[in-house]
Amino acid sequence: MDALFADLYEFTMLQAYLGEGMEAEAVFTLSVRHLPEARNYLVACGLGPVLEELEAFRFTDADIDYLATLGLFDAAFLARLKGFRFEGDVYAVPEGTPVFADEPILEVVAPLPQGQLVETLIMNQIHVQTLIASKAARMVAAAAGRPVIDFGARRMHGADAADLGARAAFIAGAGATSNVRAAQRFGIPPIGTMAHSYIQAHETERTAFEAFARRYPGATLLVDTIDTLQGVKAAIELMRGGAQPIEVTAVRLDSGDLAALSAAARQMLDEAGFADVRIVASGGLDEYQIAGLVARGAPIDTYCVGTRMGVSSDAPYLDITYKLAEYAGRGRVKLSTGKPVLPGRKQVFRTEQAGMAVGDVIGSWDEPQPGRPLLRKVMGKGRILAGARATVADARRTCADECARLPAALRSLEPAPYPVSVSPGLERARAAARREAQEAVTAPDAGAG
Amino acid sequence: MDALFADLYEFTMLQAYLGEGMEAEAVFTLSVRHLPEARNYLVACGLGPVLEELEAFRFTDADIDYLATLGLFDAAFLARLKGFRFEGDVYAVPEGTPVFADEPILEVVAPLPQGQLVETLIMNQIHVQTLIASKAARMVAAAAGRPVIDFGARRMHGADAADLGARAAFIAGAGATSNVRAAQRFGIPPIGTMAHSYIQAHETERTAFEAFARRYPGATLLVDTIDTLQGVKAAIELMRGGAQPIEVTAVRLDSGDLAALSAAARQMLDEAGFADVRIVASGGLDEYQIAGLVARGAPIDTYCVGTRMGVSSDAPYLDITYKLAEYAGRGRVKLSTGKPVLPGRKQVFRTEQAGMAVGDVIGSWDEPQPGRPLLRKVMGKGRILAGARATVADARRTCADECARLPAALRSLEPAPYPVSVSPGLERARAAARREAQEAVTAPDAGAG
Repeated sequence: MDALFADLYEFTMLQAYLGEGMEAEAVFTLSVRHLPEARNYLVACGLGPVLEELEAFRFTDADIDYLATLGLFDAAFLARLKGFRFEGDVYAVPEGTPVFADEPILEVVAPLPQGQLVETLIMNQIHVQTLIASKAARMVAAAAGRPVIDFGARRMHGADAADLGARAAFIAGAGATSNVRAAQRFGIPPIGTMAHSYIQAHETERTAFEAFARRYPGATLLVDTIDTLQGVKAAIELMRGGAQPIEVTAVRLDSGDLAALSAAARQMLDEAGFADVRIVASGGLDEYQIAGLVARGAPIDTYCVGTRMGVSSDAPYLDITYKLAEYAGRGRVKLSTGKPVLPGRKQVFRTEQAGMAVGDVIGSWDEPQPGRPLLRKVMGKGRILAGARATVADARRTCADECARLPAALRSLEPAPYPVSVSPGLERARAAARREAQEAVTAPDAGAG
Repeated sequence: MDALFADLYEFTMLQAYLGEGMEAEAVFTLSVRHLPEARNYLVACGLGPVLEELEAFRFTDADIDYLATLGLFDAAFLARLKGFRFEGDVYAVPEGTPVFADEPILEVVAPLPQGQLVETLIMNQIHVQTLIASKAARMVAAAAGRPVIDFGARRMHGADAADLGARAAFIAGAGATSNVRAAQRFGIPPIGTMAHSYIQAHETERTAFEAFARRYPGATLLVDTIDTLQGVKAAIELMRGGAQPIEVTAVRLDSGDLAALSAAARQMLDEAGFADVRIVASGGLDEYQIAGLVARGAPIDTYCVGTRMGVSSDAPYLDITYKLAEYAGRGRVKLSTGKPVLPGRKQVFRTEQAGMAVGDVIGSWDEPQPGRPLLRKVMGKGRILAGARATVADARRTCADECARLPAALRSLEPAPYPVSVSPGLERARAAARREAQEAVTAPDAGAG
């Protein structure tokens, strides 16, 4: 990632901080203020790639040359950027951990200028992955054990989102992706069927099925280009095939009444002796449609989901923030309407009973609390810690394990509450920081006369 | 862009097409089937970067090595990928052109395997930019001449979306972006104010204002960290300043009742003799809020919009498709429920009366029709045509000019219709292609028995 991927004010503030000698330690907290209505929890995602970006953070000469053209930065500052490194510490919940409103997902402890400069990068990258992982977790829950596959690359927002979204969906339990670059980058199984265009380009559907399945034994055939059940019939004929039957793993239904069509297709396949040929469904599915199909007993073995998972269509953004929580040893809060900040370094303590989560407490980092602490140190002085290099497979396991410990109501598609409270110690720290901020605004130098 | 950024089936179909000798010319059409409810038109966007990607399309050895691991591709195919180039022609509407449902935004005319392989890339890149440009056009219209600034990088979906989204918003009329990398890549003016964290890190708001404005004369001060009107008062005190007054261009309000606060701030500034200090508003704004503030006469000079523009929050995806419309000189259609395809190469003819658009006709490419043709050839045999390298500034002018020719009702936030019809010649071609497809499905080899 180019180090210029930042809002302009990060650079002007950086130069100001350096000029003012404000390089003491700061704590920045990344969290989501409010959960979208249709989310009982979020799946924290994106930490791994962000840590790699922070470790590799450098300005190129071209970056610095561009900044020089803006007329805002002096030569000494631009020279300092050449050697700029991120040398902070990072504390975070492991990727795949379910989190709730106001809970720190990540905290940066770094000299103020460094912690500030990486704001845009960290927010952007954690946001998109947490957003898509949280949506994907609902799809996976709705499918109740049937594989969910990411087919969303074409309508996710850009190539970065398509790759990171495939990663996020996989961590949240999706089984594979159609996006080959994401599969390569992140070690996700790639998967694919065939497009309508392939059928259309051939003289008949049957010719297309035969050519494809002979080349790719065990292929999945897309049967709805002309008429779904005629397509299933054509597939069956070819599987029976006489001298040279073709071998097919599944048929894919991409349009129409998927409950009725899958039932009819299942019956046709079973009666023809192809009980092991599976049925794959796709076509604008969301978690409610999947849950409806599952509830109606639709004999669909695999759900391929694209756009609605890939853009988190019902909640396409999270109210994510990256806030200064402490500077030079003093907690900082913002008083403006409705946006309280929890000061200082924090920890999330999750209490479980009989292996199931019953409530979280957000406390100060060093405050003894019952419950399992979720944040841990993952980066020290700008280097990823040895034990913190989680693979995508690790994160996927974390997500499965941690989600299994959430109450079933939370994992359903119905709204369900989960108790999160602020510890007494942290409440006291917040009150103290708020008082200090109020005193500052009414201090003699703050606008009298 | 990595050539692996494609769905897996593009590669399996590619190998199949090459193996079957199906390399005749194909036409693929990119269009949007249905407009989102709250969009009267879309702003076509993304062509420039896509053409550059197509021209540079290459496989690296690492790409080919990865594909080899999948067990799907033979050595001859992988060897052919080494020399793979996109050598097709592309026809498209100029970036910034308003388009409607079913209208071709872009058509690829290329050997079938080439036209197929670039599907994911073209769809993904045009989708995100058209999506965000279309939303941004509404923000710009709502602001009724006041500048609209892109502040969305942190919550757009990934870094690619943040850059391309800044570009799309600028083409649709936004005045600047906070995203420095996007500014550098696309020649967009970068802009920035200051963050709450900067205020919080200082002992008092006043100290922060003073330090920042002395370093950056003409800065915009963020006044709502503690209390908005107290913040305005602090800014005024410093601008009056006695011996060394600071110079401020604007104050930014980021929370609270923006109509009331902007009115109060305006009055305070005017009474203090700072009638030329502007008021900038931000904080989760969408086009309806902007229109409401404008309607109430809120004295806001500039609107900074982030998330809701950057993710097109009310309509976070478009029903965009890339469909095979012709192969080997024959129109192709898909019969499956509700998804008709217009066959062959097409043109959009826009009829204007007294300089205002009154209706479009989608016709066959070579069919004489009244009205101004919108698609033109932009790439020939894989090379961008000399006249087709539009700059971002060109596209922005196109958008302004073309949108000015739309009826005012379409540019409002209220739903308004616009007549788009299919020409008689194209209707005949569609009927013929449909007949052919139906004959194919009932042909003797298509599943009898």
